[in-house]
Amino acid sequence: VGLGTGSTVYYTLRKLGKLIKEGLTIEGVSTSSETTRIAKSFHIPLLNIDDVSVIDITIDGADEVDPDCNGIKGGGGALLYEKIIAHFSQKNIWVVDSSKIVDTLGKFPLPVEIVPFGYRQTIQILEEKKFNPQLRLSKDNQTPFVTDSDNYIVDLYLNRIEEPVKLAQKLNLIPGIIENGLFINTVDTVISGDGQTRIIEREL
Amino acid sequence: VGLGTGSTVYYTLRKLGKLIKEGLTIEGVSTSSETTRIAKSFHIPLLNIDDVSVIDITIDGADEVDPDCNGIKGGGGALLYEKIIAHFSQKNIWVVDSSKIVDTLGKFPLPVEIVPFGYRQTIQILEEKKFNPQLRLSKDNQTPFVTDSDNYIVDLYLNRIEEPVKLAQKLNLIPGIIENGLFINTVDTVISGDGQTRIIEREL
Repeated sequence: VGLGTGSTVYYTLRKLGKLIKEGLTIEGVSTSSETTRIAKSFHIPLLNIDDVSVIDITIDGADEVDPDCNGIKGGGGALLYEKIIAHFSQKNIWVVDSSKIVDTLGKFPLPVEIVPFGYRQTIQILEEKKFNPQLRLSKDNQTPFVTDSDNYIVDLYLNRIEEPVKLAQKLNLIPGIIENGLFINTVDTVISGDGQTRIIEREL
Repeated sequence: VGLGTGSTVYYTLRKLGKLIKEGLTIEGVSTSSETTRIAKSFHIPLLNIDDVSVIDITIDGADEVDPDCNGIKGGGGALLYEKIIAHFSQKNIWVVDSSKIVDTLGKFPLPVEIVPFGYRQTIQILEEKKFNPQLRLSKDNQTPFVTDSDNYIVDLYLNRIEEPVKLAQKLNLIPGIIENGLFINTVDTVISGDGQTRIIEREL
């Protein structure tokens, strides 16, 4: 089971820990140092991604989801590992609160993971392309936020993403960009909570 | 001046060092730790990429070049930084020996820089797509070769690349892949040496 990262995933991990105590047998693959720490505290057995040949299902959260089950992730800064795990999972489920569901993606700033080497130039290129980039800072507000793989994150204030597929392609072709937070044709089921549960399935 | 990496670039650096001694004023931006070391030995002044606002010209080598000035780089493992620098340069020149010029790219295995996290899965995905991937090993032949940005390199034995633009897009959309060694619509002039000098200009 792939284990996502973020505030909503915390509840999934807590529940999984409880189920394991009651006899459920699963092994998790973590998408971040944060999730590894929390999963361990709930006694969820973890495997290294390189030691599994298949991931049956991944449960994660998202920052924004559209009606086609496409979404934006990376608010927590773990998008690269989350995307690698998701890409490798047989099935992907997102659990979100209903405020995350939107008609069109883009109000949430799109996180993009970039190489530290030449990051100012990469940001300059993103500016020239009118992507409104902003380098994410760490808690001290002075140094760049550093991801689990020692890269930086730039948030793109786009407001409205009309063509997510094209945008993802365009972004990934910029050499300094490692990955972007657009998850397209990846997630099979979105479960949206608070009060009334709503389930959105991706049409295949 | 962007300074590439590789055995042919060595001669460029040596010549630049000589010209600087004779009064030429340039400042270099290095694409690798190897080039930084050699450039310093020739007393070429170096700037950090983040401290330059523009790179006028970059001189580099290549592993394979086609008649459209597209090519494959990364035999030396510096493709990511080379591609970032090239993307940011006003003009790009490659100096190669004539054996590097081919009709169709692909005989030279295409290097791809990948994230260490989940690298086995990324290689598995590349295998499923019939890209014939092989993880590059370091000199000890036991541990993976590690790039200047602490990633791994996979060489794709493709033999013949019919559609380099499409392939580059496809590869960069795989989450574990950071960059590929295809340099398309990047280089303006290719100078091929040994004996007779031949110059290929990219048609704009």
